[in-house]
Amino acid sequence: MLLAQYKQTRQYTESLCAPLNVEDYIPQAVDFTSPPKWHLAHTSWFFEEMILTKFVAGYAVLDGHFTFLFNSYYQSVGEKAVRAQRGLITRPTVEQVYQYRHYVDEHMVRLLSTDVSDEIKALVTLGINHEQQHQELLLTDLKYTLSLNPIYPVYRPDFNLVSQCSNAVETPEQWLSIDEGVYEIGHADESFCFDNERGRHKVYLQHFEIAACLVTNGEYIEFIESGGYTTFNYWLDDGWTWIENKQITCPLYWKCVQGQWYYFTLAGLKPIDKQASVSHVSYYEANAFANWKKMRLATEFEWEVASSQFTWGQRWEWTSSAYLAYPGFKVSDGAVGEYNGKFMVNQMVLRGASVASAEQHSRSTYRNFFQPHFQWQYSGIRLVK
Amino acid sequence: MLLAQYKQTRQYTESLCAPLNVEDYIPQAVDFTSPPKWHLAHTSWFFEEMILTKFVAGYAVLDGHFTFLFNSYYQSVGEKAVRAQRGLITRPTVEQVYQYRHYVDEHMVRLLSTDVSDEIKALVTLGINHEQQHQELLLTDLKYTLSLNPIYPVYRPDFNLVSQCSNAVETPEQWLSIDEGVYEIGHADESFCFDNERGRHKVYLQHFEIAACLVTNGEYIEFIESGGYTTFNYWLDDGWTWIENKQITCPLYWKCVQGQWYYFTLAGLKPIDKQASVSHVSYYEANAFANWKKMRLATEFEWEVASSQFTWGQRWEWTSSAYLAYPGFKVSDGAVGEYNGKFMVNQMVLRGASVASAEQHSRSTYRNFFQPHFQWQYSGIRLVK
Amino acid sequence: MLLAQYKQTRQYTESLCAPLNVEDYIPQAVDFTSPPKWHLAHTSWFFEEMILTKFVAGYAVLDGHFTFLFNSYYQSVGEKAVRAQRGLITRPTVEQVYQYRHYVDEHMVRLLSTDVSDEIKALVTLGINHEQQHQELLLTDLKYTLSLNPIYPVYRPDFNLVSQCSNAVETPEQWLSIDEGVYEIGHADESFCFDNERGRHKVYLQHFEIAACLVTNGEYIEFIESGGYTTFNYWLDDGWTWIENKQITCPLYWKCVQGQWYYFTLAGLKPIDKQASVSHVSYYEANAFANWKKMRLATEFEWEVASSQFTWGQRWEWTSSAYLAYPGFKVSDGAVGEYNGKFMVNQMVLRGASVASAEQHSRSTYRNFFQPHFQWQYSGIRLVK
Amino acid sequence: MLLAQYKQTRQYTESLCAPLNVEDYIPQAVDFTSPPKWHLAHTSWFFEEMILTKFVAGYAVLDGHFTFLFNSYYQSVGEKAVRAQRGLITRPTVEQVYQYRHYVDEHMVRLLSTDVSDEIKALVTLGINHEQQHQELLLTDLKYTLSLNPIYPVYRPDFNLVSQCSNAVETPEQWLSIDEGVYEIGHADESFCFDNERGRHKVYLQHFEIAACLVTNGEYIEFIESGGYTTFNYWLDDGWTWIENKQITCPLYWKCVQGQWYYFTLAGLKPIDKQASVSHVSYYEANAFANWKKMRLATEFEWEVASSQFTWGQRWEWTSSAYLAYPGFKVSDGAVGEYNGKFMVNQMVLRGASVASAEQHSRSTYRNFFQPHFQWQYSGIRLVK
Repeated sequence: MLLAQYKQTRQYTESLCAPLNVEDYIPQAVDFTSPPKWHLAHTSWFFEEMILTKFVAGYAVLDGHFTFLFNSYYQSVGEKAVRAQRGLITRPTVEQVYQYRHYVDEHMVRLLSTDVSDEIKALVTLGINHEQQHQELLLTDLKYTLSLNPIYPVYRPDFNLVSQCSNAVETPEQWLSIDEGVYEIGHADESFCFDNERGRHKVYLQHFEIAACLVTNGEYIEFIESGGYTTFNYWLDDGWTWIENKQITCPLYWKCVQGQWYYFTLAGLKPIDKQASVSHVSYYEANAFANWKKMRLATEFEWEVASSQFTWGQRWEWTSSAYLAYPGFKVSDGAVGEYNGKFMVNQMVLRGASVASAEQHSRSTYRNFFQPHFQWQYSGIRLVK
Repeated sequence: MLLAQYKQTRQYTESLCAPLNVEDYIPQAVDFTSPPKWHLAHTSWFFEEMILTKFVAGYAVLDGHFTFLFNSYYQSVGEKAVRAQRGLITRPTVEQVYQYRHYVDEHMVRLLSTDVSDEIKALVTLGINHEQQHQELLLTDLKYTLSLNPIYPVYRPDFNLVSQCSNAVETPEQWLSIDEGVYEIGHADESFCFDNERGRHKVYLQHFEIAACLVTNGEYIEFIESGGYTTFNYWLDDGWTWIENKQITCPLYWKCVQGQWYYFTLAGLKPIDKQASVSHVSYYEANAFANWKKMRLATEFEWEVASSQFTWGQRWEWTSSAYLAYPGFKVSDGAVGEYNGKFMVNQMVLRGASVASAEQHSRSTYRNFFQPHFQWQYSGIRLVK
Repeated sequence: MLLAQYKQTRQYTESLCAPLNVEDYIPQAVDFTSPPKWHLAHTSWFFEEMILTKFVAGYAVLDGHFTFLFNSYYQSVGEKAVRAQRGLITRPTVEQVYQYRHYVDEHMVRLLSTDVSDEIKALVTLGINHEQQHQELLLTDLKYTLSLNPIYPVYRPDFNLVSQCSNAVETPEQWLSIDEGVYEIGHADESFCFDNERGRHKVYLQHFEIAACLVTNGEYIEFIESGGYTTFNYWLDDGWTWIENKQITCPLYWKCVQGQWYYFTLAGLKPIDKQASVSHVSYYEANAFANWKKMRLATEFEWEVASSQFTWGQRWEWTSSAYLAYPGFKVSDGAVGEYNGKFMVNQMVLRGASVASAEQHSRSTYRNFFQPHFQWQYSGIRLVK
Repeated sequence: MLLAQYKQTRQYTESLCAPLNVEDYIPQAVDFTSPPKWHLAHTSWFFEEMILTKFVAGYAVLDGHFTFLFNSYYQSVGEKAVRAQRGLITRPTVEQVYQYRHYVDEHMVRLLSTDVSDEIKALVTLGINHEQQHQELLLTDLKYTLSLNPIYPVYRPDFNLVSQCSNAVETPEQWLSIDEGVYEIGHADESFCFDNERGRHKVYLQHFEIAACLVTNGEYIEFIESGGYTTFNYWLDDGWTWIENKQITCPLYWKCVQGQWYYFTLAGLKPIDKQASVSHVSYYEANAFANWKKMRLATEFEWEVASSQFTWGQRWEWTSSAYLAYPGFKVSDGAVGEYNGKFMVNQMVLRGASVASAEQHSRSTYRNFFQPHFQWQYSGIRLVK
């Protein structure tokens, strides 16, 4: 079953690249994104470096250069420079990177066809989850790059990532009520989760009411039109500095052309669908919107407790929780331990999943996190009152 | 009694300035500090603007320019420029600023000698607490400025702000144990507190042990000498970037001269006292130190619950809690409402008080907060395991 | 003959791209370079925009988007952003850009097969010279991009751009003496030149002696090894700031590996040839080297007067002349007038030509110019005493 | 006579400070300006360091710290930080700096009352000229600082630095004609000059006509009102970037209040005098104004040759010459040699003198120089056609 999962994941990554030209694989638009070619190679490097070279006797790496070029675990300044220059690495070619993938796949499939140890199983599962994270980034990074081309290229004309609150049970006005009390938080069973979800523990929650549906584009346009971006009082101080310095006046990818709102999507430039959930907002914007509504965002604990009662999974949802360690958090040993703990400052937690997430990559205890100014994920807003 | 408090506070601010020359009142070393002259004037402006002009019929401001010059509630970019230029405002002179203080005092004393409303009482109390905050900043800002003078000027030769863990009951090795359970957090009674302390609520804490004493300079030197600042693994990613970019290798004000550690103090440059509590560390440093010790910092809730069992008050203590709203947090209306809520992102909470705090300005529910890279407060480290 | 020149120039540009993979056409390493794809398209745009759309009745542009995407004459901030994002324009594809070139060529060849006006002839000649400038940049920009790939890709294994002072008549120690007197400077006849070369005029030169040969890599290594980059006195103040801030310790593309000097070339990483002329030095470095030698660089007037007596053409040679207008300089009308005049501040003149220059693109009155910190051209050093 | 000159110069510096409060002596508004206190101390340091400690047996410096604090000849990065922090050096006090001046004066007067060597005479003369340069900077730096105080402080109510073209012989429309030919440039006799003026040499000038008067504020307002700051074509590329980035729309110190132009002067905020010569323009502005007029600025050689035929001395006049070495320029040995040569890149020459120049500090061969964006000197515009 792990073999099937492995194959499915690797294949899905390649299927995401099917609509690309060779040219599309190359650019890195900004230091926090990576080129498709790099995502393809880095996820392969993970299996090669963490599993094949360690557990397969006589395994020969395909190309020693790749070990350096496609490693993301950089620590010193010189190597950070390399990180910002992923878009300049024209060689190896795209074709050579596919050869690399297939070489790694061949050896992984051979390995997984044998009876492997629990340690290897755990690492393969981690590698699959790691690749699923990169699938998400591959799409959001690609969208960011394409959006900067003034001719608004189309990734796939039939690509429709828009979500609507059309669930028969839920209506935009509906509020779910959660009682005060002690609740358990964190990953409970033996299935896979990241280290930051572990350490199941009790929290005490006050009573709260949470919206059944996400904020829509239509509601967000109201916020804009009522002066949301020019009213100091709605904004965190850092948020106000951010919108002033960057001259932010709407979510990422939105354009107002002759009074009509459009957004760039992976299907090209489209008129905004007012019924769809807003996305590509920063935490600052989500928080300002909630202030304007005289409401607030949920904490990540409130979200986790309430999540069984509403539909989620198309937008990452900003919470009002800073990304911090759970009680008893322990960093794993070795390179895999660099994963999460070192980012536990200056970031806010997002809960749920997004339209860019692989289907298997979603659970109610999952903690995503970004700095509060980032907009390039499919991030949305759910209100609490 | 409010009148006495008012007089005492106002007088104490001036006594802090007694050792200064006119020249010392002027400079602003960096945008997050302010000149002594500005602290003197701004705290007076607060009483004038928030109370005298609103509640005293016929009150005439001493100088209309001061309303603009000494207001800190700036919102637009142009005015932020003004904020960074407080050190360039040579006129009014220091003497004129003292005249301003005394003019405001005269009217405030007259007002407080009458039977004033609860609204006024609340505002005066706020003004007193506001001035106490500025007393703290006046000292820490002054220390920052003087430290940049290569001849290390002395503020007061007898100024000794060093704290030691000399409490008879406590020893450096002592650990206090707190049981798992539900605890109440936040300001409980009707006495003064800031808006961010209100909303007393329950939290669930896991069992923990907290150090009776703060980390000492001696222990911190061990951290440095064992490679603390050159070992990537101890640091948060942002913290590592910070020490690399700013070339940080020790707490603020420390210098190593021929293998001996010294620090700049308000009594001049001194050899470091190894028994004294470390201070002037950033959150990044406090967190890295705790990682090196294989321990951690307390959350602000743990700190508040445990604080009755140890001595505190000379060092602000970094907690592992991000500065966020308590359940039910409400921003006050008007200018006083700008106080705290808008800073609730990208900051970490400090608990306790410091040697620069006015005696009356200290309570176990008090939440101080700064961005994680700031070192210029008397910030220290208390460990939890 | 103009038709032949046109064809030869267009063909030569494409031949320079023959060794490239599709991937190599895409990246823009830094804002002052451009991708090969952009050079190919922009030079075509020039002929389309300046000639075909203006002089060919019924000419239809191949794609209206290209008019915007491949225009370099940006003036406002928004468009400057576009300039820095040439590497993100993955569509049109490389193949489409070649189709664009051939479409333009087809119409240009048809036009040039007729009897065209002098105005058109002049514009075609300008377009040819413009494309020759881009041929030079195509190579130097490509070299810059490839150099940032840690695996040092090879453009062409047989590409040898190294020049040596091997002329039978000249020896490294030879000095040419020029008499004091009045000389004529500037383009003299009716052949093509840029506007900045026009306005032939008299200058008075003092007696000087100029080196027959350029400074070699061997001499430059002596400069480095004698502390050239750590001795304040050799450097202009701005140059010293530049080497300190950017941590410059050698010419661009040089690396010292275990005491041996190597440089990246378009044929890959190679040991440095000590007899070859140094290149990829900034004006600051050229000036510092001359100071170390207790000599100086030539003015552009000295260079022009002396140039008939020595061999030149493989290295652009830094002069000590700032790039300023000749007496009577007039900016041409229209877009072509934006060419040169607006850059006449903060730049230094280079004379000669380089190994990256097209053969026909070289004359003794040619004035190249760059800011004094640029190193990415094949720039060299000729001394005067 | 040297003694009298010394005394006069030293006294004049102090007289410039007479209107200052202690507070005014402290701030440094920006890294290219210095506080009055520093100018007072540094000019004294020059005499102490270059003369007293070297030539007076047994001379004891007043305070060893001053040798470090008031030295401007910084070379390394650490010390550059110190340069930007002159405004933070509150100790020594202003009174102590005056004591330092008087201590140095006492010893200098004693020395100059004896029969001193030519070497000492030359150094004293250099020191006097150095102090005169600082007198100029003291005024222009002070003006810059005071201008940033929103209440527009007055330095001296009777301070009138405005110049008018009221010479009976000259009229605004008058043009002076200079013939083509060979002219001699540079300092001719044995009187004092800086190293950059030496090396008298021949230049060949083409015929030109130069304005008898400087451009007035009235003419400059016409330029502004006809769209001067929004028309790309008038500007050098770097100049356009500068006005866009810094949002420059008028000369430094100008404000438009309800359609009326005012400027900040050392006598306070005043309505602009349209007949007076414009000042506080950058080279970029001077050049753009000339382009708008379809004229140009003079080269420094044209200016020097023509200067005997017009009145000058109240505005530094931007020339179109980059600041470069004269033929045969030699840097002096030792610290005094750091004076001028190292700035010979990226700067433009100004000729003449300004209302802030000491009377004795003016001659037709004097070469002042600044980067093209600086506006804080009394810089003006003279046209050539």
